[in-house]
Amino acid sequence: PKKKGENAEGTEEKAKDDVKSFTLKTPKGTKDYDEKDMAIREQIFSTITSIFKRHGAITIDTPVFELKEILAGKYGEDSKLIYDLEDQGGEKCSLRYDLTVPFARYLAENKISNLKRYHIAKVYRRDQPAMNRGRMREFYQCDFDIAGVYDPMVPDAEALRVMAEILKGLDVGEFTIKVNHRKILDGMFEVCGVPSDKIRTISSAVDKLDKMLWADVKKEMVDEKGLAEEVADRIGEYVKLKGSKELCEKLAADTGLSGNANATAGIADMRLLLNYLEVFNVLPHISFDLSLARGLDYYTGVIYEAVINDSPSVQNGEQVGVGSVAAGGRYDDLVGMFSGNKKIPCVGVSIGVERVFALLSSRRDRASIKSNATEVYVIGLGEGFLEERMRICSELWDAGVKAEYMFKKKPRSLQVQFDVCDKEQIPLAIIVGGKEIEAGVVKIRKMVKEEASSGDKEVTVPRTGLVEAVEQKLQELR
Amino acid sequence: PKKKGENAEGTEEKAKDDVKSFTLKTPKGTKDYDEKDMAIREQIFSTITSIFKRHGAITIDTPVFELKEILAGKYGEDSKLIYDLEDQGGEKCSLRYDLTVPFARYLAENKISNLKRYHIAKVYRRDQPAMNRGRMREFYQCDFDIAGVYDPMVPDAEALRVMAEILKGLDVGEFTIKVNHRKILDGMFEVCGVPSDKIRTISSAVDKLDKMLWADVKKEMVDEKGLAEEVADRIGEYVKLKGSKELCEKLAADTGLSGNANATAGIADMRLLLNYLEVFNVLPHISFDLSLARGLDYYTGVIYEAVINDSPSVQNGEQVGVGSVAAGGRYDDLVGMFSGNKKIPCVGVSIGVERVFALLSSRRDRASIKSNATEVYVIGLGEGFLEERMRICSELWDAGVKAEYMFKKKPRSLQVQFDVCDKEQIPLAIIVGGKEIEAGVVKIRKMVKEEASSGDKEVTVPRTGLVEAVEQKLQELR
Repeated sequence: PKKKGENAEGTEEKAKDDVKSFTLKTPKGTKDYDEKDMAIREQIFSTITSIFKRHGAITIDTPVFELKEILAGKYGEDSKLIYDLEDQGGEKCSLRYDLTVPFARYLAENKISNLKRYHIAKVYRRDQPAMNRGRMREFYQCDFDIAGVYDPMVPDAEALRVMAEILKGLDVGEFTIKVNHRKILDGMFEVCGVPSDKIRTISSAVDKLDKMLWADVKKEMVDEKGLAEEVADRIGEYVKLKGSKELCEKLAADTGLSGNANATAGIADMRLLLNYLEVFNVLPHISFDLSLARGLDYYTGVIYEAVINDSPSVQNGEQVGVGSVAAGGRYDDLVGMFSGNKKIPCVGVSIGVERVFALLSSRRDRASIKSNATEVYVIGLGEGFLEERMRICSELWDAGVKAEYMFKKKPRSLQVQFDVCDKEQIPLAIIVGGKEIEAGVVKIRKMVKEEASSGDKEVTVPRTGLVEAVEQKLQELR
Repeated sequence: PKKKGENAEGTEEKAKDDVKSFTLKTPKGTKDYDEKDMAIREQIFSTITSIFKRHGAITIDTPVFELKEILAGKYGEDSKLIYDLEDQGGEKCSLRYDLTVPFARYLAENKISNLKRYHIAKVYRRDQPAMNRGRMREFYQCDFDIAGVYDPMVPDAEALRVMAEILKGLDVGEFTIKVNHRKILDGMFEVCGVPSDKIRTISSAVDKLDKMLWADVKKEMVDEKGLAEEVADRIGEYVKLKGSKELCEKLAADTGLSGNANATAGIADMRLLLNYLEVFNVLPHISFDLSLARGLDYYTGVIYEAVINDSPSVQNGEQVGVGSVAAGGRYDDLVGMFSGNKKIPCVGVSIGVERVFALLSSRRDRASIKSNATEVYVIGLGEGFLEERMRICSELWDAGVKAEYMFKKKPRSLQVQFDVCDKEQIPLAIIVGGKEIEAGVVKIRKMVKEEASSGDKEVTVPRTGLVEAVEQKLQELR
């Protein structure tokens, strides 16, 4: 069944109001997150944030829109997907398309030459949405980047270690991190005989190999992009190669590549990187894969992309599953586009949290998710005793206990109040009535189902010792 | 001195790049938050969130832009401050102006009749910015709202209790919460003889009494808004009234107001509310203040606004200080604008976090703020021993310890690595060198200044017991 608030591709779901003609929906490609969604999302963010912090990253925040000229010329063909703000007088602005370009602008503007930062925030793309696969027009990115001049492959290895720690921490299942190097790709294209003006477009075609068969990619290269068939065939031999450290040696021994400067530099980097990844215990997850190309123009070195192993990407010719769940690479020239001549090398990783969300969300039983934090529900018998319930809550709040009560002077019955505890999964109830007030006591009852049958289900404690008694009961339940 | 990245009103600070002509700045009225700002902001958000959760609130998220028609007709004159997205084909959208209207849309769209939710997110207003007072075009709102049909003043009292808990928790200093009631204001205007078509505009004039003298407000009423002078004078007598429970009795006894239905209903509400606030221990912070009017049209009942006591609002005729730090009220008709005939009464409070940020930020010594979480720095002697440092970090990360090392094969010296510990306030250093590796040990050194002088400043532990030893040292430092 279709989830409330979701507007999938094409469908124009209009819930017309009968009095005024409001269209009650969120804009196309966007959705509301309800409390259950938010509970899952907060768990994801908290896992990711703790790992970013474990690696010493600080966080920054930049505005949701940038001056239009900051984003211009950074995304190639995808620039058409940028949301512009209406010209209402003043500066021309656009919603950010990613967090990387604002990060580069930030570094250049503040003349920062090294920084390890993370940024978790929403970005905007006027793309064709596919909500059930986690592709939306408004979505979160969780980025970790290391800027600065360091020894080769050392920050790159840490970015990959962070990626692996997060995927393990999120418990998405077995995963593979495909790794490649732009210089190896460039060298390979040169060696195969791709004209230099066709390298980017042929690289884009290679990038589709995770969704298309080689025969179709070759057809695109030859028929659409005018590449000679024998050149395409040579590429075809290389892009089927994948492996680990032994592939470095194989490529180093390749008569074609070994004479190419780009390829040689790239292979040296990969050798170093795979060595560091072995030290970091990440190597078992790595697949050095010559078919990985990555779409974005700004990558200059190592590139990588993580996929879930048991998630099929194509089924009956149709794309299914969530695709890559994390990706990134080295981009040494982007900050220089803002800082004039000063080059700030960067490497980073971006976690595809919306895809992770779609994955984890589909596995969870929504009814079992507790979306509030309430620990205690204060229940009134008979006449309700509203002010006494308020007084008790007040004392609990002062002690930091998460407590609620029914906003009625006289609740309809004891049962309607118990029902709230069940529905909201509130573990403790405090019960007050005329007799209790007279005797200077309150009752504390464990509401959790498995506890409800045990002997000490309900205790009576002095009103003056209430807070301590509640804190102790909560301790027992933890 | 002007903080980097800040673009105050009017100033067009352009840092022109000399190669390409990029304007390296954020859009007017927006700013970047660096790691120190973020440390302060996260502390503020964490305090606020824990209090919202203490009261059982769940959280939701809505898109940053809404269909334009959703926002239309909700903000009166301020509608001109709404940011529209450019029409790039498809739906017309606007950036959200607050979190209240999206909340109302959410309730109506999902047919939710009761909810206690909080929402912390950015909103957008094309206003004249005053950045040093925390007024920006992009800013965070932290809202807590209770929707649902309940007994009178019960949720209202909880909203005010939440406001008071947060202001205490944020440690902003002594504060006063001004409270008034729209029905009392309306009744008062009726009794004074304000024509019904002038009530909203005269109410707006009264709202300026926190920034202007009565003489000037009266002038505006009489000269600009055409109110009879004797009517203005009668208003002038009422709006100087402020107090607590006794003011309810005084107003109930007022010959004018006691005959007015609106005023009588409002006074009954206030009597009940002040009683509940007394139970909640909030009454000492409350000032029932007839001069409080609040700008927004959608309020229908109790309204409130918190100010810091020692923060002057006007000095030499110029506005200074941060103004109100939290505000809110009851709005019973807003959801009905989306749901047709179904009325969902709501009451809420919004924390002015940017003002709180400006206040707390000005009090903090920026140098003393630790913006990363790093606990351990792994230092290499002599040849650097990069891979050993990586291996140690890897083990620490596996154990959840926050650790970093220098991204150099051979750091220039021991001192440059100690300097990082000082600068980043990292409490522990692990030191490895050739001798240590040979002996199968590592050194652990406490780097915190006050500890550095004590006897057990440095210990040598077996390499195999490193993680446990580090965890124990960290425990000691906490």
